[in-house]
Amino acid sequence: MGRLSIYLRILEKLSFAEFISSFQLAKEAGVNPAQVRKDLAYFGQFGRRKIGYKTRELSKNLKKILGVDRTWDVVLVGVGNLGSALLGYLRFRKEGFNICAAFDNDPAKIGKKFNGIEVKDIKEIEDFLKRRKVKIGIIAVPPEEAQEIAEILIKNGIEAILNFSSASISVPKTAKVTNIDFTSGLENLTFYLTHK
Amino acid sequence: MGRLSIYLRILEKLSFAEFISSFQLAKEAGVNPAQVRKDLAYFGQFGRRKIGYKTRELSKNLKKILGVDRTWDVVLVGVGNLGSALLGYLRFRKEGFNICAAFDNDPAKIGKKFNGIEVKDIKEIEDFLKRRKVKIGIIAVPPEEAQEIAEILIKNGIEAILNFSSASISVPKTAKVTNIDFTSGLENLTFYLTHK
Repeated sequence: MGRLSIYLRILEKLSFAEFISSFQLAKEAGVNPAQVRKDLAYFGQFGRRKIGYKTRELSKNLKKILGVDRTWDVVLVGVGNLGSALLGYLRFRKEGFNICAAFDNDPAKIGKKFNGIEVKDIKEIEDFLKRRKVKIGIIAVPPEEAQEIAEILIKNGIEAILNFSSASISVPKTAKVTNIDFTSGLENLTFYLTHK
Repeated sequence: MGRLSIYLRILEKLSFAEFISSFQLAKEAGVNPAQVRKDLAYFGQFGRRKIGYKTRELSKNLKKILGVDRTWDVVLVGVGNLGSALLGYLRFRKEGFNICAAFDNDPAKIGKKFNGIEVKDIKEIEDFLKRRKVKIGIIAVPPEEAQEIAEILIKNGIEAILNFSSASISVPKTAKVTNIDFTSGLENLTFYLTHK
C-alpha cells in the first residue's frame, strides 16, 4: 500500500504540528483529499470533520497498519558488493529490521564477517530457517540465482521477499515480492540523458 | 523506459542463444509479443520475420539506447549509513558509473575516506560542478534536506537524480528524478505480512 508509506513520510516531516487536514496531506502527497480520506477510512475512523487528524496519533496508527511498530527478523542471501552494502546499511538503521543471518555460497566469504555480520554457508539456510521463524528474506544474489533462492526461502517459511537482484522472481500467491532495482533505476536516468 | 531494461536483463540471461524471438522475449518479460515488437521497432529495425532478433546484437543496441554503453560520472550527496553503503556498492560495480565525488555537511566526515572515496564539504559542491561536467547526482541525505540538495544540483548542471531519500523531490521539466525507496519497499512487505 504505497500511499500509506507516503502519508507516513509526510506526517513524520510535519510532526511538529498538532493537527493535519486531509487537504494538507493530499497536497503534500500529490493526490486529492477524497483519496486521502478514503485510504485512511478503510482502516478506521481517525479524523474529525473540520479539525483534521491528530498528527502524532495518525502517524502511530499508520505505523501499526504498515506493520512497522515492531521489529522484524530478516535473512539476507548474497553477500557480494550490493549484499555487503545492504548489511552495513540495515545494521545501522535505527528501526524496524534485525538481520539475524546472512548467507552466501562463496567459500572465501563463509565464516567471515561483513559489516559486522558473519556469513553462513547457503547450505545451512534450510536448517537455520527451521530453527528460527523468519518471515522476510532479502535477495542480493546474481540474477540467474534469484529464482532458485526465492524458492528455497519460501519452502522454508519466508513469506515476503525484498528482491535486489535485477531478475524478476515468481512466487506463489501466498508470498509477496517487492523489487528494488538499482540497475533499472540508473538506466532510467541514462536513457533520459541519452535522448533528451 | 522500464521495459527496455527488462528486455536487456533477459537478453543478458539468454546470451548463450544466437537468436531470440519476440515470443520468447515477451514470455520472459510478462508482456505480449506485439508490445515487444512495438517497443523495439520504435528505436529501429532490429529483428527479422520468422528468425527473430540476434541476441547479442539486440543486447548491444539496447545498451546503446539505454545509454549504458558508456561510463557516466556521478556525484553522491549524503554519506550516512545508506550513502556510505552506496559508495561501497557503486565503487565495485563493474560497469557504467564512476563516482567522481561524495559530499556531506558533517565536519566529522569531511576529509575522511568512506569506502575508498574522500568526502568533500557540501559547500564545495557548486565549485566542483562548475569545474567538472557531471550529469547524474545521487541523493542519500535525510528526507528534510533532499529538496534543497536537488535544487543545488540542478542549478549546477545535474540533469538526472537518483533519489534514495524517502522524500519526494520536485524538479523542473528539464531534469528527471528516479526514486529508490528502501523504506517504502520494506513497508510494502510488512504491510502484507501484517494483513495476510
